[in-house]
Amino acid sequence: MEAYEIFRDLAIIILAAKVFGVIAGKFRAPQVVGMIIAGIVIGPSVLGLVKQSDFILQMAEIGVMLLMFVAGLDTDLKELVKTGPAAFAVACAGVFVPMAGGWLLYSFMYGFSPLGSLDFYKALFIGVIMTATSVSITVQALMEMGKLQTRVGTLILSAAIIDDVIGIIVLTFVIGFRNPDSHPASVIVNTLLFLAFCAAFGFAFYYLFKFLDSKYEHRRRIPILSLAMCFGFSYVAEHYFGIADITGAYVAGIVLCHIRDSKYIAEKMDISSYMLFGPIFFTSIGLKTTLSGFDAGLLIFSVGFVLVAMIAKIIGCGLMSKAFGYSWSDSLKVGLGMMTRGEVALIVAQKGLTLGLLQEKYFTAVILLIVISSVSVPILLKLVYRYDKR
Amino acid sequence: MEAYEIFRDLAIIILAAKVFGVIAGKFRAPQVVGMIIAGIVIGPSVLGLVKQSDFILQMAEIGVMLLMFVAGLDTDLKELVKTGPAAFAVACAGVFVPMAGGWLLYSFMYGFSPLGSLDFYKALFIGVIMTATSVSITVQALMEMGKLQTRVGTLILSAAIIDDVIGIIVLTFVIGFRNPDSHPASVIVNTLLFLAFCAAFGFAFYYLFKFLDSKYEHRRRIPILSLAMCFGFSYVAEHYFGIADITGAYVAGIVLCHIRDSKYIAEKMDISSYMLFGPIFFTSIGLKTTLSGFDAGLLIFSVGFVLVAMIAKIIGCGLMSKAFGYSWSDSLKVGLGMMTRGEVALIVAQKGLTLGLLQEKYFTAVILLIVISSVSVPILLKLVYRYDKR
Repeated sequence: MEAYEIFRDLAIIILAAKVFGVIAGKFRAPQVVGMIIAGIVIGPSVLGLVKQSDFILQMAEIGVMLLMFVAGLDTDLKELVKTGPAAFAVACAGVFVPMAGGWLLYSFMYGFSPLGSLDFYKALFIGVIMTATSVSITVQALMEMGKLQTRVGTLILSAAIIDDVIGIIVLTFVIGFRNPDSHPASVIVNTLLFLAFCAAFGFAFYYLFKFLDSKYEHRRRIPILSLAMCFGFSYVAEHYFGIADITGAYVAGIVLCHIRDSKYIAEKMDISSYMLFGPIFFTSIGLKTTLSGFDAGLLIFSVGFVLVAMIAKIIGCGLMSKAFGYSWSDSLKVGLGMMTRGEVALIVAQKGLTLGLLQEKYFTAVILLIVISSVSVPILLKLVYRYDKR
Repeated sequence: MEAYEIFRDLAIIILAAKVFGVIAGKFRAPQVVGMIIAGIVIGPSVLGLVKQSDFILQMAEIGVMLLMFVAGLDTDLKELVKTGPAAFAVACAGVFVPMAGGWLLYSFMYGFSPLGSLDFYKALFIGVIMTATSVSITVQALMEMGKLQTRVGTLILSAAIIDDVIGIIVLTFVIGFRNPDSHPASVIVNTLLFLAFCAAFGFAFYYLFKFLDSKYEHRRRIPILSLAMCFGFSYVAEHYFGIADITGAYVAGIVLCHIRDSKYIAEKMDISSYMLFGPIFFTSIGLKTTLSGFDAGLLIFSVGFVLVAMIAKIIGCGLMSKAFGYSWSDSLKVGLGMMTRGEVALIVAQKGLTLGLLQEKYFTAVILLIVISSVSVPILLKLVYRYDKR
């Protein structure tokens, strides 16, 4: 391939991603969905304009790291500690109920496998994909109704953030244990060592950046060095501890989330992300989605996947809210609000694909979940709030 | 190579580029020079931490397109027309005198080759590298002395911008003619067709973006779509017309330089560029610079290259200014101010490398020219201005 040929792919990807993203927005669906559809349309299944290549995969990987890094940067650790036990409990229920649901669904359809076997982890991984709430759609819907600054709104927001942290921890353990030859003890040791590394280097980098920040606030070197740190943590996590690289990027973001320039860093990362790397990542998901492998079995699985993923959040988060003294109506709102899934589900699925825990064909189910949850949640929330007023 | 291994290279490149860039700044040398040195240090010649890879090359290529696109965006076509014939004449002299000088230097050292032979174009290409003035160092020096808004300052600035345009045109022709099998007629036809394409699509895109801008000013879609356009023009130029991809990116920038959001687009491009792609490009130059091949012949050539490149600008631009009625002292200032070279020289050299018109070892000479010209010009300008006051 000539060097300049990549510009052809890039031009088509960026253009298609943006056009379909805008169209998706017109239908009140998230832009991400439009970008995935763009990938399907320009990819081998439909027009065949762009093929998956090593270069696109690597750019997509960088996109994933940037997304996770920004997710970490946007975390407000102090706020989380304050929101207290209710948000934590709701988040836990929102992780473990869908996880169990996903495992059950897969096992019912393809047979139960003994604990610790590769197939067991494949089943469990279906559950892991369901764990992460992507709260932005819910936030937007609540904001439009003027309900974000309520007790329910705050609970949803805090729980969704904690839910990300727990989801990452669960992912880390599932990935660690996946290998049937790996000793559970070594996985735990590796994870503990990684935590120790994060604690030691995390604090060191936190103070280093705090110092740099006091000297060079809003200077380019702050986001540039933080990007180097993000890539460094990603590499170290995966290479030395066998922990997912996305965990490393997320931790790097959390380490820097309380320095003065954290918003400034997030802003700069966001620009690279939405200009180039984000579109490439989401489009690449579409590129690998082949519609030809779609059969009745996969259809049933996909419908089941979407239903389980959505209902499990309502049951888990809703009942836990009720246990913390929220009314039935408010508990339902929390459950509904936690139902939305987005890019993190794709990122986790992508990780499963590279690790051999997930087959490519299941991406269709994940995409369906994102589309259906993000389109239905705003409508359902509006209905419940309207019913409340009567 | 595992997917995550690229993060190791990226972390090292970004960190080293920034650290050496800052150190270069302390010595009042341009950051670019620091980044190239970073590449030499982390590359195979010294520490051997990072090796050139396809991925790094492709990222560097994207970096080059972004740099050229921004250069185009920053052009002020209307201003250029106003500055009139003096700036145009100085720019022409600043392109053709160094070009002749480079060709003579190479031919004297390695023998004269018949017009139209590959070796003739290799010799000519040495001259082409010398053509583009990078005026930012001069601008900074003049600004510090409060001399930018003078007749001399304006002339230098305008001439340097026109000089880029002429340089690109010359590069386009030299590349077109390089192939001994290519008919001169077909090169001219191709170039004319490309110009026709630029005129037609350039106007179409200009009005399209003007329309988009009126509806969506300062919205993300403007820079995103313009990036797609930049890559599209790069690809079309090289693939369909055999014109350098950098010319396509530069033209795309010029097409958009007068829409309302041009500064907004340039700003967004600049962020991706300085965060990631720029450092990778400049470091990759260092990565391919092997100090082992350095011998007496190359040393003599390099010294000659630097001297010819610098003196040719003084003679060409200085004499032309004198012809337009500037005093001897002011003419000298113009010549000195036009002497600085920067990233465009590297971009041109890089293009020559991929086309087989330049050997890797000559990069050393180009780097030396950038270092020496950018360190010496501010000092020399200050001396001339101080001498003036007496």
